[in-house]
Amino acid sequence: MSKMDEELERRASLVSGAIGELLPLVRPEGLYQAGRHLVDAGGKRLRPSMLLLAAEAVGANPVPLVPAAVSIELIHNFTLIHDDIMDNAVLRRGKKAVHVIWGVSGAILAGDTLYSKAFQILAAVPGDPARVLASMDKMSQTCTSICEGQWLDLEFEQKDRVTEAEYMEMIEKKTGVLYGASAWIGAMLGQATLEQVRALEEFGRLTGMGFQIQDDVLDLCVPATVLGKKRGGDLVEGKKTLIMIDAISKGVELEIFGKGQASPQEIEEAIAVLEKAGSIEYARRRAMELVDRGKRELSVVPDSPVKSLLLELADYMISRGY
Amino acid sequence: MSKMDEELERRASLVSGAIGELLPLVRPEGLYQAGRHLVDAGGKRLRPSMLLLAAEAVGANPVPLVPAAVSIELIHNFTLIHDDIMDNAVLRRGKKAVHVIWGVSGAILAGDTLYSKAFQILAAVPGDPARVLASMDKMSQTCTSICEGQWLDLEFEQKDRVTEAEYMEMIEKKTGVLYGASAWIGAMLGQATLEQVRALEEFGRLTGMGFQIQDDVLDLCVPATVLGKKRGGDLVEGKKTLIMIDAISKGVELEIFGKGQASPQEIEEAIAVLEKAGSIEYARRRAMELVDRGKRELSVVPDSPVKSLLLELADYMISRGY
Repeated sequence: MSKMDEELERRASLVSGAIGELLPLVRPEGLYQAGRHLVDAGGKRLRPSMLLLAAEAVGANPVPLVPAAVSIELIHNFTLIHDDIMDNAVLRRGKKAVHVIWGVSGAILAGDTLYSKAFQILAAVPGDPARVLASMDKMSQTCTSICEGQWLDLEFEQKDRVTEAEYMEMIEKKTGVLYGASAWIGAMLGQATLEQVRALEEFGRLTGMGFQIQDDVLDLCVPATVLGKKRGGDLVEGKKTLIMIDAISKGVELEIFGKGQASPQEIEEAIAVLEKAGSIEYARRRAMELVDRGKRELSVVPDSPVKSLLLELADYMISRGY
Repeated sequence: MSKMDEELERRASLVSGAIGELLPLVRPEGLYQAGRHLVDAGGKRLRPSMLLLAAEAVGANPVPLVPAAVSIELIHNFTLIHDDIMDNAVLRRGKKAVHVIWGVSGAILAGDTLYSKAFQILAAVPGDPARVLASMDKMSQTCTSICEGQWLDLEFEQKDRVTEAEYMEMIEKKTGVLYGASAWIGAMLGQATLEQVRALEEFGRLTGMGFQIQDDVLDLCVPATVLGKKRGGDLVEGKKTLIMIDAISKGVELEIFGKGQASPQEIEEAIAVLEKAGSIEYARRRAMELVDRGKRELSVVPDSPVKSLLLELADYMISRGY
């Protein structure tokens, strides 16, 4: 296990430990079981770790901010539950999607409950009420952006052509802003200066966008057993990822694109075509550029071991194998 | 138009006017059109009016609190949009339900957007940050309760038998708490004492429960053209309302209960049976008792014309014809 993995693991276990307390399985149990289903399946807890690291980087003790980190994770999980309904996704993190087990109604409600619980938990974080209130405001703005991003993503399905600029706006809203808010809230509640708060938000936003592009890359490059969902799913669904936008601009045509299904061999062949066109490499490079821009934002944060960790986290987000 | 109607109309138009500003039709327009669809269809705006009246009753100027009232209305509309998906409802306020026009995905997102916008708008209300933060906390707790109430309501569909106590818990969570929160937030932001805040919340909670029981009564007693949805719909859907719980306890059996459909004549006959059993009258009386208990809570609020209005509002909520 690398040092980065260890550092992340330490923060992830703080967050996971607090979830049991902050989101107990009270009545009606079915609702909370549905809400906890994906939350308990884990994941790397990158967003909450970014919140804690941002606070630490400006000199704060992260422990009292663990509930704020949990609230970010719950918002993330709420969006996963609702997105899985919209995308008709069956698997998530190697488990059945919430709506597959509890039905669409159950999944809508489970998501809505995580949504309100996140605000409830954030409101109770100790600290200056003005800073906590500002964090609630940031969180609500972020949720609005995420909805806008998901709406744009759904609109893309109906469009013949999506530009790179449209794609970038979509992933900024759908993924970037929540990483940005994580760093913003960590810094704000960690008593950072407003300049540092702003810079850390930019760091989160840009690296989050890089992360999303890398996610599209991973959909093509990681075996299903590791990914927890079917490989190449984006291709058969016809998702306009940066890879496909680049490929289409180069005149590449894939038989299976948007066809709804394809054999494993057809998917392998399509991936090989995208490799050859340089479109996967193009997406990787754009992700790297975003991460580099994000890292430069941290010049206003004093050097420290935690700042180094944050810089490493940025690289980690686009180099992770899964 | 009665004096009460005029007073409500005045506050409703303050709220409706502010919605255009606070929830503009920005990009992506489709998302905000879907979000505004039911909001713009109006309704009586009883919850926001209760918020404003609670503030006025403790001596506050209601105008700066109009955004807080809007946020309550958005939360209410978010729950309507999501509930209509779950209940497979086609009509609402005489218009097509959101999911009928924008699909399930669009309706999920429109609801989620109103949810976050409500918190965003509430966070920006001017005032002592500690009181605004406390209001955000109350709002989030309330949303959690509403989800729990809706979950219980869905569970009732699977149950053979629902007790009156279970029904009361469900309507408290699904409807009572939002009226309670409306009065609580109006009082809190209106600088009320904590005793007054608590009493006004109780007033809202109890009258809100009365309102919900009356709503079940109206489903049986108001023509579809006025109700904006099919009359007797609860009966054919097999909803365990207080009326049906009472009727079942009296050994009444309705052919059409839960049958999914029935002719208008069959519905009329079923309603006549419930009238004769005294079950509709029983529900009316329980609603009245709740409202009376609510009104008694207001003893800690000094007498004033606005307090009289609040007391009238309570009666209005269970006497309205639609």
